[in-house]
Amino acid sequence: MANQDKADTFVTEITPRSQDFSRWYLDVVRRAELADYSPVKGCMVIRPYGYAIWELIQQALDRRIKETGHVNAYFPLFIPESLLNKEAEHVEGFAPQVAYVTHGGGEELEEKLIVRPTSEAIIGTMYAKWVQSWRDLPILINQWANVVRWEKVTRPFLRTTEFLWQEGHTAHETETEAEAETLKILDLYKDTVETEMAVPVVQGIKSESEKFAGALRTYSIEALMGDGRALQAGTSHNLGQNFAKAFDITFQARDKSVQHVWGTSWGMTTRLVGAVIMVHGDDSGLVLPPRIAPYQVVIVPIGRDNWREAVLPRAREIQRELAAAGIRVTLDERDERPGWKFSEWELRGVPLRVEIGPKDIEKSAVLVARRDTRDKRSLPMEGLALRLRDLLEDVQRSLLERARQFRDEHTQRAETYEAFKQAMDGRPGFVIAPWCGSADCEARIKAETQATIRNMPIGGRAPAGRCVRCDNPAKTEAWFAKAY
Amino acid sequence: MANQDKADTFVTEITPRSQDFSRWYLDVVRRAELADYSPVKGCMVIRPYGYAIWELIQQALDRRIKETGHVNAYFPLFIPESLLNKEAEHVEGFAPQVAYVTHGGGEELEEKLIVRPTSEAIIGTMYAKWVQSWRDLPILINQWANVVRWEKVTRPFLRTTEFLWQEGHTAHETETEAEAETLKILDLYKDTVETEMAVPVVQGIKSESEKFAGALRTYSIEALMGDGRALQAGTSHNLGQNFAKAFDITFQARDKSVQHVWGTSWGMTTRLVGAVIMVHGDDSGLVLPPRIAPYQVVIVPIGRDNWREAVLPRAREIQRELAAAGIRVTLDERDERPGWKFSEWELRGVPLRVEIGPKDIEKSAVLVARRDTRDKRSLPMEGLALRLRDLLEDVQRSLLERARQFRDEHTQRAETYEAFKQAMDGRPGFVIAPWCGSADCEARIKAETQATIRNMPIGGRAPAGRCVRCDNPAKTEAWFAKAY
Repeated sequence: MANQDKADTFVTEITPRSQDFSRWYLDVVRRAELADYSPVKGCMVIRPYGYAIWELIQQALDRRIKETGHVNAYFPLFIPESLLNKEAEHVEGFAPQVAYVTHGGGEELEEKLIVRPTSEAIIGTMYAKWVQSWRDLPILINQWANVVRWEKVTRPFLRTTEFLWQEGHTAHETETEAEAETLKILDLYKDTVETEMAVPVVQGIKSESEKFAGALRTYSIEALMGDGRALQAGTSHNLGQNFAKAFDITFQARDKSVQHVWGTSWGMTTRLVGAVIMVHGDDSGLVLPPRIAPYQVVIVPIGRDNWREAVLPRAREIQRELAAAGIRVTLDERDERPGWKFSEWELRGVPLRVEIGPKDIEKSAVLVARRDTRDKRSLPMEGLALRLRDLLEDVQRSLLERARQFRDEHTQRAETYEAFKQAMDGRPGFVIAPWCGSADCEARIKAETQATIRNMPIGGRAPAGRCVRCDNPAKTEAWFAKAY
Repeated sequence: MANQDKADTFVTEITPRSQDFSRWYLDVVRRAELADYSPVKGCMVIRPYGYAIWELIQQALDRRIKETGHVNAYFPLFIPESLLNKEAEHVEGFAPQVAYVTHGGGEELEEKLIVRPTSEAIIGTMYAKWVQSWRDLPILINQWANVVRWEKVTRPFLRTTEFLWQEGHTAHETETEAEAETLKILDLYKDTVETEMAVPVVQGIKSESEKFAGALRTYSIEALMGDGRALQAGTSHNLGQNFAKAFDITFQARDKSVQHVWGTSWGMTTRLVGAVIMVHGDDSGLVLPPRIAPYQVVIVPIGRDNWREAVLPRAREIQRELAAAGIRVTLDERDERPGWKFSEWELRGVPLRVEIGPKDIEKSAVLVARRDTRDKRSLPMEGLALRLRDLLEDVQRSLLERARQFRDEHTQRAETYEAFKQAMDGRPGFVIAPWCGSADCEARIKAETQATIRNMPIGGRAPAGRCVRCDNPAKTEAWFAKAY
């Protein structure tokens, strides 16, 4: 009876998505035990279930990073203040957000240390030491690390003072090579996010005002969340020679001249977990794409009083078979009602639920329920692993398809400012509009509609029309949205 | 000719191990590009080759941690000062070593934040929130993270201000369970270090003066380095109810009473990479156990001028065959003399070198050289992958055997203080001696001989003899050594 109460509370505690998306998000994070608030302002605890999702994203991304010839390394958490100050735009961009270590080992430090907000400064300093000749290039290094950026308003996974990420830092002989690397990574990010997380993204280049502090050009992938807001899911920066000049990273070129290297940097973070929640989740909680689901299948034994004797042995056999086939599977043996277990695993977004009761055993079959479509079907026990594998692939595919369709339905074009404002006021989503390229227009649009330029098509030609705001000739099309 | 010079410098730059072990260690770390000094005092950069070794150790350890039912999570880097202060012994032990963040986001913080030196305080705070009933127990959580402990004297991998580690933190219903967990992890650590790193260890319990600040009991694994000094390779702490009481981690027990949980914590760090270097390395550089070698096999094409045409295609085929068989293999295609390449890969400790030249191709054979024994033999190309796999297993086995033999040869017994001092003065290593259990004797032995108690046999009965220093009846045997 206590459990009965528990089950009811459980379900009612999630605010409906349509009612209040922001509360729904926080409810899912808390109830699915993805993260929790910590006693440190702005910092969250990533709980085991949330961390397991991050680990699967990490593995998929790390594999791709290595397959493209990059290697991992680790650089210090602390950056002497003077190093950050070397690149003028960089320090201006990050100084307001940094945390300072002033005391260590019982003494005041001679020079304040910054807790890394990003590692261009410390890595650039090392590259200056390591690079002498063109033979030492390219350097293709990635780091998995925690970083700290002081934030006033935080939200679990999406914006926290400390977060986890990977940051790639490369150095090249030529500008062409650096640009190719920047775009290769952008493709790699798109592939990871779409293939593993089933989240479709828009690739493009950032405007001057939105680019990384110190970069020549910043590219991004942008995803549309379930409430029609955009989320920047990854960025790839062509640093030009800015950091090379600030940190004196030079090499003897093939023609014996001394030159500065060309740099790139790029990162994706734990905010990806937030994207998964907001793209696929529904009123019952999480909906996880199989590739990044800690459990792809949950087995729930059904039966009145004697399920432990009548059903559990067969359920365990099935668990072993599925695990042997490489499926991440769990068996819920708790003393709770099946209905309570169903809600629990729906909340946690497990892609497939296998129900097995005495009648199923008689028929040598199980009942399989999909989390995404709630479709239920009976499947024979024989060959179950293969069928479930197919079904998991189908879930993965259809989640991406559904998200893509949602994105397309929420992407509009606007040629006039009236149409633009209407679009932004009404059904939220992306609005594609021509833009003159002036920072002033960009700022006014943001002030008047809250929409920012997410990114712009790469290498796109100037469209025929006029800027959606100022009526000057358009230089480019831009993807606008209200963003996280 | 430039290369000729390079090769000579290369080899002569490593100080012989027998001449100056400490310099030899630093030379190997630098020349094999395992780590580098950074602009931050006491912090090192782990370079890609060193990090790849760490990643292999990490994977092997993470697999075992998960197989024993633990899950990973992530807790904040920062700990409010007041939290650290809650456990009296704990704060006393760590306060002198901590780094303080005093400013963030352009403002002075209301409460200073500590950069975690270890996470009992922040994790204990969360467990107090998460645990209500005995049904919530045990909690078996592990974290991979960076930690900071201000150090006056540092040495790459062995002792640095920032280092990487895993820290397990568990909470249990009963004292018996917590003790069982503590010892299970100690066994898991021993298995990881011996099986993966081929480093034999001595398991035991720490003395009161050497135990973790705040623990009831600390257990450790201790390894003997090539210079006869001991290195603490891992520790597992039974925390009793100390942290539970300090952080108010209570639960409703099966009998409805409210009780404090029983805790454990345990960690291994990047210092393990230092152990690998110091146990197996020789005058030519690193010697890596195959299981943690980034490259297990290096293929070096041999030949006068036309090796690119005559040899390289066949070498590439072999590389593909070996890679397909799951062997981590690299092919050295650089324009350098084979001799230069040999020293380079010996320095980096690659377990097996495969040489292939025009004559080998004629004979359908290759020459295989072992890094550990320098044994060379010709092997047919057919079935090469299988033979190399066997050979790699043999290298792994014989490295452990050799290290065990070295350890045994450098372990003496002493019943008198004269004999003890002689042993410590002469051939360094472990000295097993009876001890009365008094902290005073322990401190005097340390002051007079520099030797500390590394650990003591677990559950050992009191030996027959008398304390090696004070002549009171012995309470236990202890393993003494000069330590890192």
